[in-house]
Amino acid sequence: MQFFTSEKPFELECGACLPEISLTYNTYGRINADRSNVIWVCHALTANSDVKSWWPDTVEKDKFLDPDKYFVICANILGSCYGSTGPLSINPATNKPYFNDFPLITVKDIVKAHRLLAAYLNINKVKILIGSSIGGFQCLQWAVDCPTFAENMIIIASAAKTSPWVAAFNESQRMAIESDCTFYANTLTGGEKGLAAARSTALLSYRGPSAYNKTQADSGNNSSIVFHRACTYQRYQGEKLCKRFNAYSYYRLTQAIDSHDIGRSYGGVINALKSIKSKTLIVAISSDILFPPDEHAFMAENIPDSEYHVIDSDFGHDGFLIESGQLNDIIQQFINKKQ
Amino acid sequence: MQFFTSEKPFELECGACLPEISLTYNTYGRINADRSNVIWVCHALTANSDVKSWWPDTVEKDKFLDPDKYFVICANILGSCYGSTGPLSINPATNKPYFNDFPLITVKDIVKAHRLLAAYLNINKVKILIGSSIGGFQCLQWAVDCPTFAENMIIIASAAKTSPWVAAFNESQRMAIESDCTFYANTLTGGEKGLAAARSTALLSYRGPSAYNKTQADSGNNSSIVFHRACTYQRYQGEKLCKRFNAYSYYRLTQAIDSHDIGRSYGGVINALKSIKSKTLIVAISSDILFPPDEHAFMAENIPDSEYHVIDSDFGHDGFLIESGQLNDIIQQFINKKQ
Repeated sequence: MQFFTSEKPFELECGACLPEISLTYNTYGRINADRSNVIWVCHALTANSDVKSWWPDTVEKDKFLDPDKYFVICANILGSCYGSTGPLSINPATNKPYFNDFPLITVKDIVKAHRLLAAYLNINKVKILIGSSIGGFQCLQWAVDCPTFAENMIIIASAAKTSPWVAAFNESQRMAIESDCTFYANTLTGGEKGLAAARSTALLSYRGPSAYNKTQADSGNNSSIVFHRACTYQRYQGEKLCKRFNAYSYYRLTQAIDSHDIGRSYGGVINALKSIKSKTLIVAISSDILFPPDEHAFMAENIPDSEYHVIDSDFGHDGFLIESGQLNDIIQQFINKKQ
Repeated sequence: MQFFTSEKPFELECGACLPEISLTYNTYGRINADRSNVIWVCHALTANSDVKSWWPDTVEKDKFLDPDKYFVICANILGSCYGSTGPLSINPATNKPYFNDFPLITVKDIVKAHRLLAAYLNINKVKILIGSSIGGFQCLQWAVDCPTFAENMIIIASAAKTSPWVAAFNESQRMAIESDCTFYANTLTGGEKGLAAARSTALLSYRGPSAYNKTQADSGNNSSIVFHRACTYQRYQGEKLCKRFNAYSYYRLTQAIDSHDIGRSYGGVINALKSIKSKTLIVAISSDILFPPDEHAFMAENIPDSEYHVIDSDFGHDGFLIESGQLNDIIQQFINKKQ
């Protein structure tokens, strides 16, 4: 893991300003002489900059993030808690963590921070910009804000604008966090029970009915009248997130999701999509209820140089982490075609 | 609204015992001389015994609950808070409301209470037993526990057994309530913020992506970078429920949903469905993500004398409350055919 700090004030889209920002990032492989082998990975909500730790079968020989071929880079997003500036960072004005005082950030702000890092690393152009879920949000925003940056772009299980459905899911999660009064105590573990409940709700959207009914079916051999394996799973996953995340970052990042609209200040979503210069691959998961295939078809219809694939999977939105075989085939084909 | 009290101890499936139970109920129309015009309505999660107040276009002339033709009856379910015994009822052992000490109840217990009321009213048989959502759970359980009770049965937007997906939704809601520490204070308003968050999560399952994206789309004329009409809707609906319900009843009733398995003690769901003697109409909503059409097709395949319809609607599970035109046509046809 490496560190980058920009000591200049960092203005946010909401009007607030962070006195400085730091980003942590990971790299894999080596940059080649003409700097033409860079793949920039944008990560999803609760992930981190270590792509190997959360995206199986990718940063490996002969996979699409093969470190023998590519210089792969991923930065922890602004507002997160894996080393980049976020609500648990020290607020220089108070010498205490920001907690609930951390300002509202948007996807555009997250991308603006990435761009500072790219400039620092002297990367003006990448071979591939790739992201799944809200990683895809960042890629799209980047490609619109800076059309010369990404030669190719790969968007998986994502959308050009946050739908009412996704915003409603996020609001329910924020309401769960707010219902935990410890959230307002501004401590390192504040809002943990609310965060667990929020994560449990988020999982519903990540998996959907097909995945739950496939993977969480009961054996029928239990004697309890209300036992469901699925309930144990929800609670376990909620508690698991609390060990590696915090309610303050989570709350702000769900708001960042809600901010996503690549059409803002570009005359609408269609105009923004039409302005994208990158050769773009769009991949949807057939059972994704969070970002369903039709939102991907819409992107492919409007991005000038694009192709569109649907991965057939029962795993819903999480299919992007699980269907590595199908994903690798689609991406390798796309890369080989474009070379 | 009328009242019924059974002063005998009421044994529950969990092994606990309520010293007595009360039920409130509403009736519409008059019972005829041979008592052959009774329609018994079983209500859903947060509804009450006044069918007219929550099911539009039903208890009206020429509709399927026409009070000029039928004697319609509906009882508030055990565990609820509209007059029937529930967590806010006084526990005779302490002279205070039960709150969190109210025992676990199951759908079978709810039906057992309904059956006491039916016996008290000298109703041994109904022309139609009808229910939507967990109202359908009660009908199915009743038809299995007492195969001679319902001549005809109508099940709308429901299931024979709670799926892992539905249980996971319920667990997320209970986790939200638990994250509100006031829930453990055992007061009349305890757990209200958690209840609002739970309701917000439940709404996601009641509407689904199609309804949210249809009814909650933003005009695009707002200046806020994170405003979504859908978020306002979630918060409004959450707060609205708190004015008419309580977290203790809600928590126990979600557990009652999880208990639903008509196959329990009947050798499995298929055996239970095959034992149903009522002529049965099964109605699914095309966009229902809570109880999707395939779970209805499964019921129709296994209930000996049954027919199956799918209402085409974008409103998801809530379609049973909204698509009154289609529902009325399907039900009237079914009733006329069976007469």
